[in-house]
Amino acid sequence: MPLSDALLQDIQDARAHSMPTLRATAPALEALLYTPFPCLDHGFVRVVDYMGDDDAVVQSARVSYGRGTKASRTDRGLIRYLMRHRHTTPFEMCELKLHVKLPIFVARQWIRHRTANVNEISARYSVLDREFYLPRPEDIATQSKDNKQGRGEALSPEQTEDVLAALREDAERAFSRYEGLLEEQSLARELARIGLPLSAYTQWYWKVDLHNLLHFLSLRLDPHAQLEIRVYAEAIAQAVKAWVPLSWEAFEDYRLGGVALSAQGLDVVRRLLRGEAVGQEQSGLAPREWRELMDLLERDETNP
Amino acid sequence: MPLSDALLQDIQDARAHSMPTLRATAPALEALLYTPFPCLDHGFVRVVDYMGDDDAVVQSARVSYGRGTKASRTDRGLIRYLMRHRHTTPFEMCELKLHVKLPIFVARQWIRHRTANVNEISARYSVLDREFYLPRPEDIATQSKDNKQGRGEALSPEQTEDVLAALREDAERAFSRYEGLLEEQSLARELARIGLPLSAYTQWYWKVDLHNLLHFLSLRLDPHAQLEIRVYAEAIAQAVKAWVPLSWEAFEDYRLGGVALSAQGLDVVRRLLRGEAVGQEQSGLAPREWRELMDLLERDETNP
Amino acid sequence: MPLSDALLQDIQDARAHSMPTLRATAPALEALLYTPFPCLDHGFVRVVDYMGDDDAVVQSARVSYGRGTKASRTDRGLIRYLMRHRHTTPFEMCELKLHVKLPIFVARQWIRHRTANVNEISARYSVLDREFYLPRPEDIATQSKDNKQGRGEALSPEQTEDVLAALREDAERAFSRYEGLLEEQSLARELARIGLPLSAYTQWYWKVDLHNLLHFLSLRLDPHAQLEIRVYAEAIAQAVKAWVPLSWEAFEDYRLGGVALSAQGLDVVRRLLRGEAVGQEQSGLAPREWRELMDLLERDETNP
Amino acid sequence: MPLSDALLQDIQDARAHSMPTLRATAPALEALLYTPFPCLDHGFVRVVDYMGDDDAVVQSARVSYGRGTKASRTDRGLIRYLMRHRHTTPFEMCELKLHVKLPIFVARQWIRHRTANVNEISARYSVLDREFYLPRPEDIATQSKDNKQGRGEALSPEQTEDVLAALREDAERAFSRYEGLLEEQSLARELARIGLPLSAYTQWYWKVDLHNLLHFLSLRLDPHAQLEIRVYAEAIAQAVKAWVPLSWEAFEDYRLGGVALSAQGLDVVRRLLRGEAVGQEQSGLAPREWRELMDLLERDETNP
Repeated sequence: MPLSDALLQDIQDARAHSMPTLRATAPALEALLYTPFPCLDHGFVRVVDYMGDDDAVVQSARVSYGRGTKASRTDRGLIRYLMRHRHTTPFEMCELKLHVKLPIFVARQWIRHRTANVNEISARYSVLDREFYLPRPEDIATQSKDNKQGRGEALSPEQTEDVLAALREDAERAFSRYEGLLEEQSLARELARIGLPLSAYTQWYWKVDLHNLLHFLSLRLDPHAQLEIRVYAEAIAQAVKAWVPLSWEAFEDYRLGGVALSAQGLDVVRRLLRGEAVGQEQSGLAPREWRELMDLLERDETNP
Repeated sequence: MPLSDALLQDIQDARAHSMPTLRATAPALEALLYTPFPCLDHGFVRVVDYMGDDDAVVQSARVSYGRGTKASRTDRGLIRYLMRHRHTTPFEMCELKLHVKLPIFVARQWIRHRTANVNEISARYSVLDREFYLPRPEDIATQSKDNKQGRGEALSPEQTEDVLAALREDAERAFSRYEGLLEEQSLARELARIGLPLSAYTQWYWKVDLHNLLHFLSLRLDPHAQLEIRVYAEAIAQAVKAWVPLSWEAFEDYRLGGVALSAQGLDVVRRLLRGEAVGQEQSGLAPREWRELMDLLERDETNP
Repeated sequence: MPLSDALLQDIQDARAHSMPTLRATAPALEALLYTPFPCLDHGFVRVVDYMGDDDAVVQSARVSYGRGTKASRTDRGLIRYLMRHRHTTPFEMCELKLHVKLPIFVARQWIRHRTANVNEISARYSVLDREFYLPRPEDIATQSKDNKQGRGEALSPEQTEDVLAALREDAERAFSRYEGLLEEQSLARELARIGLPLSAYTQWYWKVDLHNLLHFLSLRLDPHAQLEIRVYAEAIAQAVKAWVPLSWEAFEDYRLGGVALSAQGLDVVRRLLRGEAVGQEQSGLAPREWRELMDLLERDETNP
Repeated sequence: MPLSDALLQDIQDARAHSMPTLRATAPALEALLYTPFPCLDHGFVRVVDYMGDDDAVVQSARVSYGRGTKASRTDRGLIRYLMRHRHTTPFEMCELKLHVKLPIFVARQWIRHRTANVNEISARYSVLDREFYLPRPEDIATQSKDNKQGRGEALSPEQTEDVLAALREDAERAFSRYEGLLEEQSLARELARIGLPLSAYTQWYWKVDLHNLLHFLSLRLDPHAQLEIRVYAEAIAQAVKAWVPLSWEAFEDYRLGGVALSAQGLDVVRRLLRGEAVGQEQSGLAPREWRELMDLLERDETNP
């Protein structure tokens, strides 16, 4: 990820000027501020501003729940209580602003999270840089057989080479055409860009509160999320962990590592714990849900 | 816009089955229901459901403003009053659901309107059809000199021909590559699609309330909106006019045909009406704002 | 709940006029349309419009997931899959509009659900009716000892009588004062109302999509929700069940009857199923979480 | 506005600890941070955190509009351009967090602005302080004759005295009852509070982005807004002016001091400027709109 000289200069300038503030401050995030986390071949995500910290979550919760809360719970205990019981509004009191460079097909998944603020570079105003995403060889795979939306086995090295060459050649050609249409035909930018591939990089500022950011991460850190957006989610997760370590810990325990049981699933667990022999047919669960439950409970599904 | 046989069959089926309902019903919109308005070369927009009508706006307003309202105003007068004074919540009480087929670069502009519900076809699950947008020859133009985001003069017929041929050739090649990667290499769909152009068509269901729809239309019917999204906005406008004619009329009078004056602009108008000679320098307006104001007032800006 | 003559007339009129429509129609909800479900002593909730049905959820999901979905899953199976995996956007494609009469303290809890449209009667424009909420004797209770936000034991019949008499007397006096200030002093309505109690009834139209409605219900049907808002949630639940029975069934199985396990909770379950003896101290759970988990699993917590 | 000792201590502590930060910092707002602006008799609003400044607006806009923007416009010019053309997203990149103490009837108007985050003190968890709003004598007035939602003439000093005495007596009684029910009957807090008046004070943390805050202010600074919420809007306006002076200036010029003309209104202005004699009947405007337009243009409506 070679950064442009202009961006490097901006980062250096921004990190050179410290100011005193009376606001809540997160030193571990200050240490990361403005610095890009590289993502994919040309992308990055960097924190450009934040508001609040773990204390701000606690403080807002204590407004709601009143005086008694202070005595009876530590901050960590309160944050865990809020996360466990999905009392989400105190987590909305923190805010993060990111600068992201990402392929357009990733941007299209990302933008579906509506509760956020966005300013994206406009290809009607600006000429896009000649930058497009190519997967690493190890990330190229066949369509999964079980998972309608995922990747399956690796291709052979030769096939991988062919796929990469094809993607590269086409993207290069599309960018050359784009530049030619702009320069030789003076074609309007808003038209010239329609032939660019979905792998072209775009950039945006994206601002979101902590509750909605954690929701974004719970979906985009999931193994079913497309690899290319997961890479960004993992980078953001590092920043969040530095920023609000208690909230992050609670999020890991109750969301990322937690699971949901259906009414029928809970009933199966209770019966198994009582020592009953329960199979799929007695469970009230469809075969697929039964397998998912047995996996979850780490039981041999054929001989539970 | 040749529709697929499956869609034609769906439309025919949907239009064949009428049901009785006690809900507010808009007969002029029923007549258009499910039927596509063609947009661009392969796109369309069609209304697939709606809730409410002009009466529903009035009814909601009367809940807020109480009994007295009924006697003192006609429905039309009340709707105009609400629109004039930006009392927007009664317009949120109507809802429209559209099925839209549109190029990806148009979808990317559209999705920026966040207060709406969306279900888009996923290229991780489905193989996209071989359909991409090519402008009509008369819509191909150079970059505007004054307007950083717009189109200027037409290209010569030869240049136009060249541009179209280039766009067509590249899009054809990209789709052939896409199909080849899927069929020959069994490449995962989520990867194969990254080389498709922004002109490729996608589809979605989009549901929005009338207030937010009118806001969308006020931005996307504007001459500064990109032509390709304006085409969709114009088709939707026809449906809205059939659906809620009183709200539409008020929207035309107070939004589309209305203008905003700044504090300084209002001061200029007052002074001109009193017979004062006012020029840009005495106006407190920047030169560009002065020109915009003179245009608005239909005055010769050099000799006002 | 004696309804005003005007409202009874409106309901009769609205139910008398059936129109043909090509839209998705839910006959079981049509049968309930406009008719109030009584709530508390003077309140009600009634459905005044709706958009979509279970089929609309399925149809939107199939736009996203494409052709293959149709063959492989029944509608019911697909809806259950969507609910289980929290694919929420297809449920946003249905919309419900309610007319609600409710005490102001209930309205203040309700309005915290922001993703909805509201038109409330304004006490600046209208004079409020002399109607206020009084609990039933059996709903009057002491502050709970364990639950900082809930009710505990019943009061004695005498105390209950005293409480009711006090609440009634004060509310009557406040309304008399309100009427006096309006009539004798001609005081502005927006000022006269500031002495009214939080038990006074207000009314609003409230429109929401099915996903957000189910989220509202999951919070407001919960035993920890205040009884007075639960009464409304239960009435709405009846309407939703009539409207979208498959979605409702899935909601009951995966949300209302389902539970969340933390990472540590799941670990405890797995160890218990393998036959390990696990107590709170070995569990990694705080004592309160341990008790909650044992309750959930229907195990004797002192001797698990 | 006597502040509680606990709050005074919190403010003193918060203002005592400065930290270095690399974030955008607004020194004029730092000077105001945490300190309450008194509002009404017992209320206040104070800024407890902020994100961004005028530069952050500019920076986000330049991401969207690209390189060229930098050369051609000053920051002030760009901010005015954005405000004039309602390019609202860059203003969403700043965020303000307020702590507000306010009467419940004001809170009910305020909460209608949905695009914000809120944590309110809960009267289910906490016992509310004995504090309620009483208008100043000069703010007590009759119902307006022309304005269905406003105040008209002052009452006589005797009447004013009577009204105040009545409001005070009733509120005192309601709070005494509340305290009695809690202490003597141990009534559940969530029930005891239902007799409290709408003039009782509540508190919340409220967090909002600059675009939505300006929209809130445009509605709540308006002379038609109820006086009691206008007082809060004016206090917030002072904070915003210190925080983002360029954005505030543009907001004053294009929103607060600006006006909207309808299509017909614009036509009247053009005709008057050409020297035509235009009266209401030739204008296409309803009588009320004609009067509003003549007022706006500062023309004698009877002899324009």
